[in-house]
Amino acid sequence: MAQLNEPTLQADAHYMQQALELAARGAFSAAPNPLVGCVIEHRGRVVGRGWHERSGEPHAEVHALREAAAQAVGATAYVTLEPCSHHGRTPPCADALIKAQVTRVVVAMQDPNPLVAGQGIARLRDAGIEVVVGVLEDAARRLNRGFISRMERQRPWLRLKMAMTLDGRTALANGQSQWITGSEARHDVHRYRAQAGAILTSARTVMMDQAQMTARHPEVQHQPLRVVLDRQAQLPPNANFYAIDSPVLRVIDAAQDASTNEHQWPAHVSTLALPASAGRLPLRSLFDKLAELHINDVWTECGAELAGALVAAELVDEFVIYMAPKLFGSDSRGLLQLPLFERVEQAPELVYESVTPVGTDLRIIARPLHSGGVSRGELTS
Amino acid sequence: MAQLNEPTLQADAHYMQQALELAARGAFSAAPNPLVGCVIEHRGRVVGRGWHERSGEPHAEVHALREAAAQAVGATAYVTLEPCSHHGRTPPCADALIKAQVTRVVVAMQDPNPLVAGQGIARLRDAGIEVVVGVLEDAARRLNRGFISRMERQRPWLRLKMAMTLDGRTALANGQSQWITGSEARHDVHRYRAQAGAILTSARTVMMDQAQMTARHPEVQHQPLRVVLDRQAQLPPNANFYAIDSPVLRVIDAAQDASTNEHQWPAHVSTLALPASAGRLPLRSLFDKLAELHINDVWTECGAELAGALVAAELVDEFVIYMAPKLFGSDSRGLLQLPLFERVEQAPELVYESVTPVGTDLRIIARPLHSGGVSRGELTS
Repeated sequence: MAQLNEPTLQADAHYMQQALELAARGAFSAAPNPLVGCVIEHRGRVVGRGWHERSGEPHAEVHALREAAAQAVGATAYVTLEPCSHHGRTPPCADALIKAQVTRVVVAMQDPNPLVAGQGIARLRDAGIEVVVGVLEDAARRLNRGFISRMERQRPWLRLKMAMTLDGRTALANGQSQWITGSEARHDVHRYRAQAGAILTSARTVMMDQAQMTARHPEVQHQPLRVVLDRQAQLPPNANFYAIDSPVLRVIDAAQDASTNEHQWPAHVSTLALPASAGRLPLRSLFDKLAELHINDVWTECGAELAGALVAAELVDEFVIYMAPKLFGSDSRGLLQLPLFERVEQAPELVYESVTPVGTDLRIIARPLHSGGVSRGELTS
Repeated sequence: MAQLNEPTLQADAHYMQQALELAARGAFSAAPNPLVGCVIEHRGRVVGRGWHERSGEPHAEVHALREAAAQAVGATAYVTLEPCSHHGRTPPCADALIKAQVTRVVVAMQDPNPLVAGQGIARLRDAGIEVVVGVLEDAARRLNRGFISRMERQRPWLRLKMAMTLDGRTALANGQSQWITGSEARHDVHRYRAQAGAILTSARTVMMDQAQMTARHPEVQHQPLRVVLDRQAQLPPNANFYAIDSPVLRVIDAAQDASTNEHQWPAHVSTLALPASAGRLPLRSLFDKLAELHINDVWTECGAELAGALVAAELVDEFVIYMAPKLFGSDSRGLLQLPLFERVEQAPELVYESVTPVGTDLRIIARPLHSGGVSRGELTS
């Protein structure tokens, strides 16, 4: 790789930032594919822009090259993810870039997809194109956390949503909890739901809160898979939750399987029977299964018990906490049921990633410390 | 008041900002006097600067006029608080400004001190000086919350400090709590202590945490008054807390008074006996008393019981919460003991004022909603 001078680095970051913003336009539609954006720059002018909208449709590079047409010759292409090298549902983008005669390709990150994994970059270099890798890589990785997680760890990225008071309470002692957070926070939750591949919840939360767990947001493109943990198969086929015609995966204890009658269930409801042990469904197996179903991102809304189990199992990748400026006091309901700790060092440690005012509430995003959080300098408000 | 055009408004805000920064230099020393800063500007140049360092020493205006000398003639003086009009320990600053022949005085806020309360401004205007009032008034009021509170409400400004985990917990179930927050947060606490007129705590906290409640900070000028609520007079004269030679006010139930022997106590310890009822000391009476002792700002560190009592009595003006990125779980100890609420609307509502990363923790400042919080737009990180 050629030594880059300061102005070039700045220009590269500038155009890559534009490509990242284009990529984000696919946030409600691209899954299970990654979000990808592409900018083609020629002599300081952007001559082509593209992003990947949905699976089966052209990749970002194709859109951008189409707009650039003959101006792609001698241009630089900025792509947020390594161009693909394999024939999938569309021909390889690396080939398209070579054919268009761009002379330089700047890539934010290598594709974690084992079908690509550096081969797209190699193919470009073999064709004599200068390739720079790693510009705004952190931001690019953040944009595709779910896809990367599924590719690298064979499990989806798990966001655990919680709504609480400033003193960490989710409901009064009598169970009353509506509404702790304001309407802006609830709208924000629906935006997250609409971007998730699946929404995970428990039968208990569905029953207690009459929760539908659908994404009600103006930009929603398709309803996420609703995954309901119902170990004891308590939620009946005629529950309102099942009446809504959007896909559901009910997860029950394998021991319950025989007792339910498959033909009772609407066509949009599938049942997954997993062997429970010590009264708990095997959460890791469930996440393996969700990855097999091409789920990149799981958005979780549940009570203190399941939330605590997910934390204890170290399955939570990101905590999304809406903190209302209210105080409920110590007799009210807590956020998480965790094992009894004897020493402070045993308690889960996180790292704050961002704090954002959402209406009158705060949205706090934190990640487990052991997973390698974003550095302090990136904390935004 | 003359109509001000946009460039004048900007210049006024610019110089007033400098005056506010000068005022803040007295943060560790000026109490019980207010923080005041002064900038003298002549033809676009700052020709004098001053701030009030401590009671009995010259006011900000005097320092600034001294530096400006003859250049004060025809100049504009920017003062963060209305110049005084009365002969206190120093002569009236309004007279000094008139004598120096400044032609314009810009004041951030009127002095809430009933001895001044507009008379300084009136005196300047009577002398033919143009006076503008209210430039950066919000910031000026925030700088002197304690002084304003004592003048306007005859009680100190109460900050309640709490350290908790992200799930609102102060200790494990077994009581272990060291250390929840990091060293930067603890340093920040000492900075607050060093700026307070008094530190309020309970005998229980002193005993449980072996707390000294002194200000250990490089900029400390004098130790704040340590106020310990010891209704049942449980903390003995030979406690470590009393061994430290800095002023203490122990507050006991008047019913306990006769049982203690006054000559046992070191000279730096005073006892205030107040009539308890229903097992509680009268907190409002205590705050009246602290205002009489010229305490502007009370910094409170205590357990869930006293914290809850202060919240329930609506005495907390500002919550300063250090939130560590840790999870202790629902069996651990809660933040505040509050009455049982039947409905969400009964719970205390706050408004966030700022969120600031402090080391790996967050410092969240919130205020009671009913006291009129700062608008959302001012939320800083």
